[in-house]
Amino acid sequence: MTIDHAGIVGAGGWGTALAILLGSKGIPVKLWGNEPDLIAEFAQTRENRPFLPGVRIPDCVEPTDDLAATADAPLILVVTPSKAIRSVAARLAAAKPRPGSPILSCTKGIEFETGLRMTQLLAETLPDHPVAALSGPSHAEEVSRGAPTAVVLASAEPAVAEELQSLFSTGTFRPYTSPDVAGVELGGALKNIFAIAAGICDGLGLGDNSKAALVTRSLAELIRLGVALGGKRETFQGLSGVGDLMVTCFSRHSRNRGLGERLGRGESLEAATASSRMVAEGVPTTRSAERLARSLGIDTPIIDTMRDVLFEKLPPHDALLQLLARHPRAEEE
Amino acid sequence: MTIDHAGIVGAGGWGTALAILLGSKGIPVKLWGNEPDLIAEFAQTRENRPFLPGVRIPDCVEPTDDLAATADAPLILVVTPSKAIRSVAARLAAAKPRPGSPILSCTKGIEFETGLRMTQLLAETLPDHPVAALSGPSHAEEVSRGAPTAVVLASAEPAVAEELQSLFSTGTFRPYTSPDVAGVELGGALKNIFAIAAGICDGLGLGDNSKAALVTRSLAELIRLGVALGGKRETFQGLSGVGDLMVTCFSRHSRNRGLGERLGRGESLEAATASSRMVAEGVPTTRSAERLARSLGIDTPIIDTMRDVLFEKLPPHDALLQLLARHPRAEEE
Repeated sequence: MTIDHAGIVGAGGWGTALAILLGSKGIPVKLWGNEPDLIAEFAQTRENRPFLPGVRIPDCVEPTDDLAATADAPLILVVTPSKAIRSVAARLAAAKPRPGSPILSCTKGIEFETGLRMTQLLAETLPDHPVAALSGPSHAEEVSRGAPTAVVLASAEPAVAEELQSLFSTGTFRPYTSPDVAGVELGGALKNIFAIAAGICDGLGLGDNSKAALVTRSLAELIRLGVALGGKRETFQGLSGVGDLMVTCFSRHSRNRGLGERLGRGESLEAATASSRMVAEGVPTTRSAERLARSLGIDTPIIDTMRDVLFEKLPPHDALLQLLARHPRAEEE
Repeated sequence: MTIDHAGIVGAGGWGTALAILLGSKGIPVKLWGNEPDLIAEFAQTRENRPFLPGVRIPDCVEPTDDLAATADAPLILVVTPSKAIRSVAARLAAAKPRPGSPILSCTKGIEFETGLRMTQLLAETLPDHPVAALSGPSHAEEVSRGAPTAVVLASAEPAVAEELQSLFSTGTFRPYTSPDVAGVELGGALKNIFAIAAGICDGLGLGDNSKAALVTRSLAELIRLGVALGGKRETFQGLSGVGDLMVTCFSRHSRNRGLGERLGRGESLEAATASSRMVAEGVPTTRSAERLARSLGIDTPIIDTMRDVLFEKLPPHDALLQLLARHPRAEEE
């Protein structure tokens, strides 16, 4: 199998950044988005102004509003918000993609109704295709500008992971391979919940000491739940676990941390999300993760508290003080 | 043993913040500093202007320039820069502190000549005293203002750790106990090296993706060397490991990160350190850690590179690109 072109399903910031990355290597890409007006604008201006203003989209990237146009490619990237994945996968399946062509999930989330990770959902809907996941600390804007970035490419099939690694590698974009698809996906999905909590800490002005304590306990909770859900502990110590958690909790760019900051300043969830085109995946992931944790009997105080803040109107200030006060006496308890 | 007053050796930001913390609980403190003029000013203005401007020093804290005045206390905190610890400990020993009174190290460092941690050095010089270490993500300025903070109090003697925990606990300052003195001290000391590297990343403007990759590998390197030096893996996953590492690498307040940022912008080490009263412990710790790692045969590429930047004039830009390019193909290699 030689991957000499690709289809990208989802033309938000990350889908476009990956299109630019492949395009910069001369690899033709069909980039699908669901808003015909925007797609026509990208094609004309060679720029994704809402998400990546000022970055030129290479000529070999062809924006399209026809999902079936991506199905013929020897590789399909799925980069839509998590809640759109199931319907997009069904539409892709109907367009009959080439049997055996890999489907790469670049979306971070867990389906609420089923508890499925994105690659599980894709494998269910597109059973004749190997699946893989791309995750790790990678702001789209930085990747689109060529800032040095390291990510993880996970697949149960080593040959698939290695071929994708070679396809995506550039002088500044370095994918590592991993066989732990569950761990890589769970790290990427769960960290968004903790980023909202860290953002609330910022919005309340509690300070760096509080935030460090919160993020330390977030990592422990991420590992506890992630291992129970089938991920490997070592994966959570790596780029797609602690690496992605740190950058999301501390970066000015992070949309989930930013959402938390607005909540911490007193905005409602509706107000804080209404003003952005970007989807804060931590919000739906909180519900999915809380449900999974409860079904497995795993102790997840931070996730539970975030659920109360996001969906039960627990005031963020009370939530954070409650979390910070909930300390055992010895560190390893 | 009842600890009803304390001596604090070292009147920089952290020593003063801990004096304010104990003083706010009504515990009398003798706070020693080695600059008589400054000590006289603290006593008169009730403020440590160079380090903690605007924070009032409680009346029960008595600044003193007589080191022997701290020796009579049932608890002595040592909070000087690491390179002063040996001489200060010898002077304390000469002042004959109460036998059996605990000595608490709040200093983060490793002695270059001997490779000793601070509590090892103190135990050698003051053999009739139990030793303990306080570490964790705790900017002095935030602690002095009562921002919520969690730290680790480590002692090989559980009764000592528990008594100190009770002594220092307030509604906002929460010490956990740990029996892993080596791990707690090593986490606190080693993280400063990686904070300099993270700061260089900032100074060069490499972006959050690069920094996340660097700090992820820093954590792995910290754990690898820390475990080889006798710390427990779980300790490095906690407040005094990953917690302190994160906040030091990402916080605006961190002096070690700040030093790295200035190096990254092109300043010399001399220029970057000359303008601050504060000691960046990461500089001497780099030499100590590199020597220990070499003697044990532990692979420490980031520490080695920082040694070359700090002491061998390796340009920071070359150093970081060299580190970021040094990637294996699979994440767990």
